[in-house]
Amino acid sequence: MNTILKKLTETLEARKKDDPTKSYTASLYRDGLEAILKKVNEEAFETIIAARQGDNKELIHEVADLWFHTLVLMAHKNLSAEDILNELAKREGTSGIEEKENRSKSKII
Amino acid sequence: MNTILKKLTETLEARKKDDPTKSYTASLYRDGLEAILKKVNEEAFETIIAARQGDNKELIHEVADLWFHTLVLMAHKNLSAEDILNELAKREGTSGIEEKENRSKSKII
Amino acid sequence: MNTILKKLTETLEARKKDDPTKSYTASLYRDGLEAILKKVNEEAFETIIAARQGDNKELIHEVADLWFHTLVLMAHKNLSAEDILNELAKREGTSGIEEKENRSKSKII
Amino acid sequence: MNTILKKLTETLEARKKDDPTKSYTASLYRDGLEAILKKVNEEAFETIIAARQGDNKELIHEVADLWFHTLVLMAHKNLSAEDILNELAKREGTSGIEEKENRSKSKII
Repeated sequence: MNTILKKLTETLEARKKDDPTKSYTASLYRDGLEAILKKVNEEAFETIIAARQGDNKELIHEVADLWFHTLVLMAHKNLSAEDILNELAKREGTSGIEEKENRSKSKII
Repeated sequence: MNTILKKLTETLEARKKDDPTKSYTASLYRDGLEAILKKVNEEAFETIIAARQGDNKELIHEVADLWFHTLVLMAHKNLSAEDILNELAKREGTSGIEEKENRSKSKII
Repeated sequence: MNTILKKLTETLEARKKDDPTKSYTASLYRDGLEAILKKVNEEAFETIIAARQGDNKELIHEVADLWFHTLVLMAHKNLSAEDILNELAKREGTSGIEEKENRSKSKII
Repeated sequence: MNTILKKLTETLEARKKDDPTKSYTASLYRDGLEAILKKVNEEAFETIIAARQGDNKELIHEVADLWFHTLVLMAHKNLSAEDILNELAKREGTSGIEEKENRSKSKII
């Protein structure tokens, strides 16, 4: 796995034992799934706003925030960045509209 | 950069020249920013639903979808996964509540 | 209750017996809660985009769409516009920051 | 217009002159469009969570919150509940799949 994603995975794991009054991530774990999902939703909103504003620096910042909070979500569920990367790797073979059809099939809705 | 993210970056770049009737990604580029953001929003929703359902396989699938569409967004803005990873790396030094405060300071809202 | 909201409530109730291949609302009931919530999420996104574009006609259109789909959600749960209006009426007495504090107390998160 | 929506419209208008440190609504106006949209997005999220939890009282509460913040948005743009109700009334004639097709045509995306 990528160095930073690996390091981040370790950090997110370590934070599970940290003091929630001193660690932002530990406070998210303590507040639980709804609190983490609320942040994922908020960061998706901010990504959308930043993309529309056309400020690339801000956009990178917000997408990083979004990825970060999805990784907190993964860690909370005892999953990690590696699971996401493996899933993305699995799809890399397929292409085009075929890829879309495969995706549609596996949709929950 | 991580192998799969690097490969994905190349693929997303290559799709810019592909036929939108044959490539899902090319069709997103053609439809433009609103269409891409609409998908980012939809995949955030599906991530939230999957996390609440407690189905980890589905959750990994939806987070991968969310990451994928943020990468399409990056490519559409001539940015890439590398920009996100660099931003995450920059933060890895900081920690705890200090990290949250830094984040707050740079919020657009 | 307001004439149009009353009429809409009756229409949404009547659609429960309609053919999902001929009525959009009936097709939402058939597809179930996730499909309705997906639309609520989508219309919230489009409200945000329209508000940012500064096109008031489009904004009115999208907020109407959002209200409409929350009313479909209400009907699906055997609730109605009246429940929302009663809740809003209950709050109309309170004001200012006190109002915010009451709201915070009743938050689920 | 419905009594409560009319009263709420007047209240939201009056709050424009209120002290933002004492009125929640006045503080939203002061913070501007992004802050209001952030709340619209948040309340849509909480509506979705409440609907999935199956707690009707909570759901009514969150939908009322969502309607309230869309009305703050309307007021901020010098629009009101009446504009939304007029738009809903205009649609009440049409029905079924025809209704959906009309809606699709007017989508911004």
